[in-house]
Amino acid sequence: MPAIDGNRLLKDLYAAREIGKYKTGVHRPTFSPQDIEARHWLAAKLTEAGLESSIDGIGNVYGRDPTPGRKLLMGSHMETQNHAGWLDGAMGVIYGLEVARTLGHGIDVGSWADEEGHFGPFIGSRSFCGLLTEHEIDVCSNRETGVSLRDALRQAGFSGPPRQKIDTARYRGYLEAHIEQGAELEDHHLRLGIVTAIVGSRRYRIHFKGQQNHAGTTRMSVRKDAGVALVKFVAGIEERFPAVAGPRTVWTTGDIKLEPGAASVVPGGAELVFQFRDTDPAVLEALEKVIDGLLEEAAKGPCEVSVTYRGGSTPSAMDPGFQAALQESAQRHAPGLHQPMPSGAGHDAQIISQMVPAGMLFVPSIGGISHHYAENTRDEDIVLGCQVFCDAAAAILEKG
Amino acid sequence: MPAIDGNRLLKDLYAAREIGKYKTGVHRPTFSPQDIEARHWLAAKLTEAGLESSIDGIGNVYGRDPTPGRKLLMGSHMETQNHAGWLDGAMGVIYGLEVARTLGHGIDVGSWADEEGHFGPFIGSRSFCGLLTEHEIDVCSNRETGVSLRDALRQAGFSGPPRQKIDTARYRGYLEAHIEQGAELEDHHLRLGIVTAIVGSRRYRIHFKGQQNHAGTTRMSVRKDAGVALVKFVAGIEERFPAVAGPRTVWTTGDIKLEPGAASVVPGGAELVFQFRDTDPAVLEALEKVIDGLLEEAAKGPCEVSVTYRGGSTPSAMDPGFQAALQESAQRHAPGLHQPMPSGAGHDAQIISQMVPAGMLFVPSIGGISHHYAENTRDEDIVLGCQVFCDAAAAILEKG
Repeated sequence: MPAIDGNRLLKDLYAAREIGKYKTGVHRPTFSPQDIEARHWLAAKLTEAGLESSIDGIGNVYGRDPTPGRKLLMGSHMETQNHAGWLDGAMGVIYGLEVARTLGHGIDVGSWADEEGHFGPFIGSRSFCGLLTEHEIDVCSNRETGVSLRDALRQAGFSGPPRQKIDTARYRGYLEAHIEQGAELEDHHLRLGIVTAIVGSRRYRIHFKGQQNHAGTTRMSVRKDAGVALVKFVAGIEERFPAVAGPRTVWTTGDIKLEPGAASVVPGGAELVFQFRDTDPAVLEALEKVIDGLLEEAAKGPCEVSVTYRGGSTPSAMDPGFQAALQESAQRHAPGLHQPMPSGAGHDAQIISQMVPAGMLFVPSIGGISHHYAENTRDEDIVLGCQVFCDAAAAILEKG
Repeated sequence: MPAIDGNRLLKDLYAAREIGKYKTGVHRPTFSPQDIEARHWLAAKLTEAGLESSIDGIGNVYGRDPTPGRKLLMGSHMETQNHAGWLDGAMGVIYGLEVARTLGHGIDVGSWADEEGHFGPFIGSRSFCGLLTEHEIDVCSNRETGVSLRDALRQAGFSGPPRQKIDTARYRGYLEAHIEQGAELEDHHLRLGIVTAIVGSRRYRIHFKGQQNHAGTTRMSVRKDAGVALVKFVAGIEERFPAVAGPRTVWTTGDIKLEPGAASVVPGGAELVFQFRDTDPAVLEALEKVIDGLLEEAAKGPCEVSVTYRGGSTPSAMDPGFQAALQESAQRHAPGLHQPMPSGAGHDAQIISQMVPAGMLFVPSIGGISHHYAENTRDEDIVLGCQVFCDAAAAILEKG
């Protein structure tokens, strides 16, 4: 099996880290000047590697192997969360670049725009898979600045070319490498994770409407306390979910807001943001029923309850053959130091797996930290991961 | 009994409403230009009524009857909450003015600075009672602007004169009238409330420290979710308080904040603001024990819990003789349309009652609304209340 050039790989990753550098991490939100610079830098790197590179109408950087034959698509994303880590996304892209250079042919590389969702969910990979409408592009805007996606693309200089679409006949499949973003590999002294499936999720924003009142003069019996209604709802989740959840299910009340949120005022409104994730669609469905039951019960209380947002995604199973190829390669380079595991976080692979077989490889996150500038992975784990990734790719291409 | 001049009373209240007018209410935060104007306007009114008026070193407006003999002190406050009601405070002060004019002698009037707590709790009435130290004045600052109390007093032109102190031998006692700030009188078709006691309270700010983590990749078993710890704590209050509380106890979780408060992040911190009120010290103590028990249980969980603020006040019983005088007067002018009731809100009377006997009279709040510009009371209820107040004052002074 061909050996990757670990120094070349790390040198490129270090170079990418300089673009939008923030402390030990990177601040490179989608279509910021730093992100645009990173996309052009990557396109040049892909060209240098012998690929035909382009940046398309949604900002996807795409490098095509000009040689004939079926290809393996590799990639991830170049933009980051705000003040976040240097490897989240970039590592998977540069792995693709390094494998393309190492194998010499058979590899296309994609850097999918906005996996981090500054404008919306999986804009780039959905565009590539034909799952993003022009209408959605019309209505998306930056979650922080409010700038429309159309304006952002125009200002970035990406609005001219058409959007690239996947040619499913061209591809044997899609491989993506990523940092784990959790501490499970580290906790178990493992160096590689082979993803079995990417979790699906259900996401809710739920509002309780009560009646705002003076906290000293309003008797308990006549109160419509939206905060209490919310607390009882969340306590209900914590009470009932464990019995229905699978062993890997996770659920999180990420935010709570009381209105007006003053010491001496009975809250007239309350809002919570809640989500749960699992790889098993049946578990997601059963948990959804728990939520619906709690909503029904809450509606019988003194406050009005309304679901102001309900969304989510379906679980994505990774291709068993790709899992086997990654496993075999992992066992060769790090015997006993790898495990199959689900991905609790979302990735572009969950979109592209809807079109072609897909596989994912995880390397350990030090301390499990991600979405923070302190995110890191040991250099030797980065290099090992790329070699394992490269061997698996070669094996998959060989099988045809 | 002498009759008040209802038109003169309403004319003065309408005039005060113009100072800092906001929609149908008033925006007159403590030591704002509008508040300063209102204090000078009141001082002139008190002089006009034959009292010796002054504004002292804490901003209290004080009108002294120059005639000999024991006096009855009356008052309330002129500043308002932000964008709040026109009667909350001002009505009690103008009642004092009107009673002083009607009786011709025997009445001193005080407008206590900052009852609404823009700088701190009961600054003006505590100063008058000798319960506010120079050190506290040094360290108080505006809860919104951060301007120090010293600077605010200087800018208002109030820092020159000394602070007036109560002469307890001078006073037969203190009477305060106020809007109810609740809907109990209205709900029971009553026109007057005679306050039996002002509730005491316990106030807490409680912080939970967990560990911030990725909501997709962090297993439930290793989480330290500060939001869940907080929700369980509040649910515990709702579960246990009813068994220990008195029939009139009120308790309120007024605010909840999760840190960082993002959909996909396990909260690393959580804070709540909680209070409860009752007129019975034994009930307050028993409820405090419930909170301490819940804190102990929370500390056994995965998160650290700390009480970052713990404060409160003791209940203040109103003088039985003053209650009887108000009741007799109420029965004369509105037979069967009055009731004894506790005050769930705090008032300057709770401070001054520590020095001299005190009584309070409530008039109905339309729809129970207060701390909002829509706060209102029917003109005929305002006039009735002042006549009842005046008769009670005359009766108390007569008894000597």
